Amino acid sequence: MHVIYSIPSLYNWRRNLESLNARIGFVPTMGALHAGHLSLIHRARKQCGTVVVSVFVNPLQFGPSEDLDRYPRSFNTDRRLCREAGVDLLFAPRPEEFYPSDFQTAVTVHRLTQRWEGEARPTHFQGVSTVVTKLFCAVRPHLVYFGQKDYQQCLVVKQIIRDLNLDIRLMRCPTIRESDGLAVSSRNRHLPANQRIKAGLLSKALCQGEDAIKDGERKVRTIQARMQGILRNNPDVHVEYLAICNADTLEPLTQLQGTVVLLGAVRIGKVRLIDNRLVQCPHQVLNRK
Amino acid sequence: MHVIYSIPSLYNWRRNLESLNARIGFVPTMGALHAGHLSLIHRARKQCGTVVVSVFVNPLQFGPSEDLDRYPRSFNTDRRLCREAGVDLLFAPRPEEFYPSDFQTAVTVHRLTQRWEGEARPTHFQGVSTVVTKLFCAVRPHLVYFGQKDYQQCLVVKQIIRDLNLDIRLMRCPTIRESDGLAVSSRNRHLPANQRIKAGLLSKALCQGEDAIKDGERKVRTIQARMQGILRNNPDVHVEYLAICNADTLEPLTQLQGTVVLLGAVRIGKVRLIDNRLVQCPHQVLNRK
Repeated sequence: MHVIYSIPSLYNWRRNLESLNARIGFVPTMGALHAGHLSLIHRARKQCGTVVVSVFVNPLQFGPSEDLDRYPRSFNTDRRLCREAGVDLLFAPRPEEFYPSDFQTAVTVHRLTQRWEGEARPTHFQGVSTVVTKLFCAVRPHLVYFGQKDYQQCLVVKQIIRDLNLDIRLMRCPTIRESDGLAVSSRNRHLPANQRIKAGLLSKALCQGEDAIKDGERKVRTIQARMQGILRNNPDVHVEYLAICNADTLEPLTQLQGTVVLLGAVRIGKVRLIDNRLVQCPHQVLNRK
Repeated sequence: MHVIYSIPSLYNWRRNLESLNARIGFVPTMGALHAGHLSLIHRARKQCGTVVVSVFVNPLQFGPSEDLDRYPRSFNTDRRLCREAGVDLLFAPRPEEFYPSDFQTAVTVHRLTQRWEGEARPTHFQGVSTVVTKLFCAVRPHLVYFGQKDYQQCLVVKQIIRDLNLDIRLMRCPTIRESDGLAVSSRNRHLPANQRIKAGLLSKALCQGEDAIKDGERKVRTIQARMQGILRNNPDVHVEYLAICNADTLEPLTQLQGTVVLLGAVRIGKVRLIDNRLVQCPHQVLNRK
């Protein structure tokens, strides 16, 4: 496995690949690799001749009051995990080369970033969009692997690929979960034991919503009440949103049809958790008497 | 010469080139090709195995009160000129495919776009930055050719290349001029004969500034007065700016040293003209008595 820390070295590495016709799969990460990342890497390993993983804690996607400083960092473990998973190239740029002092370019996605995570974290998606564009331009992969856990992020990245004419296919991969349903995330390790017990409730709430839809419930308010019911009576769990949205535009729905996404965000103590469920609404038989 | 109108066809064309190791030179244009564009194409032809020219009148870089509708269009002539100049691929995307209705991504360069053209045309550089990024991502060239006439644009594009980690070299090529010094531009054809006579004065004014610096003048105000002197007493010619700037940052200078750029913009009737001169200040001998 190669490890590259500088952008010119990456350019050289990438140019040398050009004549080889290798299919390049890319898994961008902020390090602190966990089972979710590893599932992306394994999938890339199966589908591509060359697998690239980046480890870069992107300061641009953290708001001023967010957890950049205490975001978990474990580069030596990450490197070992990548080597064991058969990664070809680990790209770990230095922040001061990645964002030099005269850096002044931003990539912005408008409509898709207005709501949900974009509303809760106003500078977040511009940071994600900028780093993802930089990484895609530098690595020039054919396939990129993202976890469904960050559903809105998947849509934003897909929009960038389409809008900026990047010849890249986004592979949205299933969320990896703990036994109680909690979506695996680097931030879970910040949960103290007594709060960790409550963290599984977000996933349970979304499952309740999914079950309600599958059971034929079509009233958005009723489904929302079912989801909220799970989280009620837990003063530690602060619900930021529990929404029922169009799966492509993320606009909240008043009428359920087609594929819908249930989006949720909660705060438990200092830790913010997000999760989602994609649900295919059963076809409604109209005019049945 | 291939002509491609759609982005997926361009992706295919580009992928097939990958194994050939050809150096790709790219000249992005808005069509209405003139001697300035042709000099860029000729230079690309000399330096690259494959030459791509794009013809696309980019609506994003025109302000609401600007001349998008009357911007000159001459696709058949452009195609002939490209063929005669030995262009390998002419890429002429359809606006509705290039900016579909759900398009929502923008590329923004901050500091460099605050002044001069950015101030006069507030949405212009975001439009340029977005289209240039899209074209670079789609074509994936090794070298790109821009005319020095649009000096601020050259700096903005260079900044995007650096900031977004595009492995591209920008070739800034000399401004092509008419016999009276007027920089060749597609908009010149909108000048009626009586105003065309005045249009050469902008270049003359900048030459006066250059001569003053070369003659050892170091007072910014004096140099500025020399430039303005040429344009005075011409009520048809409205000066937007005549500035003496740091050639890298475009900040106005109070003390001349190193490489400076003289930037000018004037309006003559309905036509807006810009031009510039790069000047190397002679070394000053300090403490000479």
